[in-house]
Amino acid sequence: MTEFELIRRYFTRPPADPIRVPLGVGDDCALLAPKPGMQLAISSDMLVEGRHFLSTVEPDRLGHKALAVNLSDLAACGARPLAFTLALALPEADADWLEAFARGLLALADAHGCALIGGDVTRGPLNICITAIGEVPAGLALRRDGARPGDEIWVSGTVGDARLALEVFRGRLSVPQQVFDAARRRMECPEPRVALGLALRGLATSAIDISDGLAGDLGHVLAGSGCGATIAWPDAFETIAAQRQWKPSEADFSSENWQSLVLAGGDDYELCFTAAPERAAEVEAAAVAAATPVRRIGRIDAAPGLRVVDSAGHPVDGSWRGFDHFG
Amino acid sequence: MTEFELIRRYFTRPPADPIRVPLGVGDDCALLAPKPGMQLAISSDMLVEGRHFLSTVEPDRLGHKALAVNLSDLAACGARPLAFTLALALPEADADWLEAFARGLLALADAHGCALIGGDVTRGPLNICITAIGEVPAGLALRRDGARPGDEIWVSGTVGDARLALEVFRGRLSVPQQVFDAARRRMECPEPRVALGLALRGLATSAIDISDGLAGDLGHVLAGSGCGATIAWPDAFETIAAQRQWKPSEADFSSENWQSLVLAGGDDYELCFTAAPERAAEVEAAAVAAATPVRRIGRIDAAPGLRVVDSAGHPVDGSWRGFDHFG
Repeated sequence: MTEFELIRRYFTRPPADPIRVPLGVGDDCALLAPKPGMQLAISSDMLVEGRHFLSTVEPDRLGHKALAVNLSDLAACGARPLAFTLALALPEADADWLEAFARGLLALADAHGCALIGGDVTRGPLNICITAIGEVPAGLALRRDGARPGDEIWVSGTVGDARLALEVFRGRLSVPQQVFDAARRRMECPEPRVALGLALRGLATSAIDISDGLAGDLGHVLAGSGCGATIAWPDAFETIAAQRQWKPSEADFSSENWQSLVLAGGDDYELCFTAAPERAAEVEAAAVAAATPVRRIGRIDAAPGLRVVDSAGHPVDGSWRGFDHFG
Repeated sequence: MTEFELIRRYFTRPPADPIRVPLGVGDDCALLAPKPGMQLAISSDMLVEGRHFLSTVEPDRLGHKALAVNLSDLAACGARPLAFTLALALPEADADWLEAFARGLLALADAHGCALIGGDVTRGPLNICITAIGEVPAGLALRRDGARPGDEIWVSGTVGDARLALEVFRGRLSVPQQVFDAARRRMECPEPRVALGLALRGLATSAIDISDGLAGDLGHVLAGSGCGATIAWPDAFETIAAQRQWKPSEADFSSENWQSLVLAGGDDYELCFTAAPERAAEVEAAAVAAATPVRRIGRIDAAPGLRVVDSAGHPVDGSWRGFDHFG
């Protein structure tokens, strides 16, 4: 199978929207025709085997996840997915693998009306690089620099689940099978919060998606906005494990480790965002409209730094650091 | 050095044009504000060590080339470079390597006013994936499907030089030092023909950049346009070697091998384009304005297939196939 046959066979489809995507796969460039008044939001992520995914992952889930992490960035900007490019280095052209990878990838793309417009396929150590492009009305993009003291901090869905599954894979933790299955699905098949991001336009004062861990990613918002925050542990946080009434014993996994797992585990692809307290009802209505659960986890302070307090308001010690690929 | 420090140190610069690039590196997405009436041209290329570059290449030249191959795609569409994302997998965070890589990359970016707006850095086998975004007025993009019988076929610059250098690196060919130096520079530091691409808007009927080899890439134009072509060998072709009065002896390297090297060697990043014969003077004027030499190499025929003829018009046998990464 040549490179060109491979692209034609697995990755070429007519653009669904010939007005907005007048030229897709097959020329030197693809062409996009953004609507007047719209800005384009652009995000690139690269996935490497052993670092971003395990070699055991099913290829359809990998295809899903490779696009999902980029759509999650678009969601965090309040952008509507428009198109994406795919660059793929493969050790070999395995038809079964490619068929499954493309199926998972394109199913998510179709669910969000996001056209595959081009890219590159080459031989090399497995590497997946996607650049996603979305549209957002000028001035309405959600950014990291808009949080203000007094704002409430919200998080969608559950956090820590992907890291829980990873710890099980690594043999550091044992969990009931049903907890593992659900956590593994969260790790391998994250659902980008695109609908919530769109619903938060003009409502959230800042937003970020949680890829490196809640504490670290919230830290980017605090740095960008020039303020601090206080969050409530553990009451404010929901996990897949807690939903299934499971928690590790202190002997198996210390409460400090558990806290790090939830607050700094990463790979969550949930949105962390801020909004003025008087708009809380609107945030809840937006979440309902987007069919996405959200929870308040704390508030933005003028004083710099991230503080974690227990239900009585006492400081909780702990060291949370976002997972870092060069740390 | 953490991932974030690395990005801040080597790859973060304020966008040069805050109107068109309202948000660059540092948020979930970058934001672009295209001009009304413009379409965006998008291209992604992935470079893998040992396949697209040798491990011996200087990192500044590698930085240059990684962007150059994408700007060459924009040039082939007649698009003006606007911005690019960089995703980089590195075996280690080597400060000297990164400093030189960024220097070569950003020097070329600055020369074309193309802003680095985001991307990703991770640990992994060396892999460079760039997505470049350009602007072109709606309806004026140069495409592969517009060649018509009777059009003349043109090529910019020289072809076969990068492959010549590769054959020397592989020990299959010996050439005078000055020929090698010049050919190596063409292999490691291709200059994307952006100015020529812009000058050909509304003038060329089709265009493609030569990455896989002239015969193969011209073949994509013929397939896209539903026609054939006749090109003249060897008179129509210029190479770095010929410019320095050097040619291999038949004993060292057969004339058929030489022909394959020039016509199918690849990695040229020159433009191959077609234009109506009555516009030849305009093409030559556009090339002068773009300070880029061009040559006519043949003509488009109604009959499908690519024919190569000698100066007397007799068919030349030969098998030219574009270099293919999965062939």
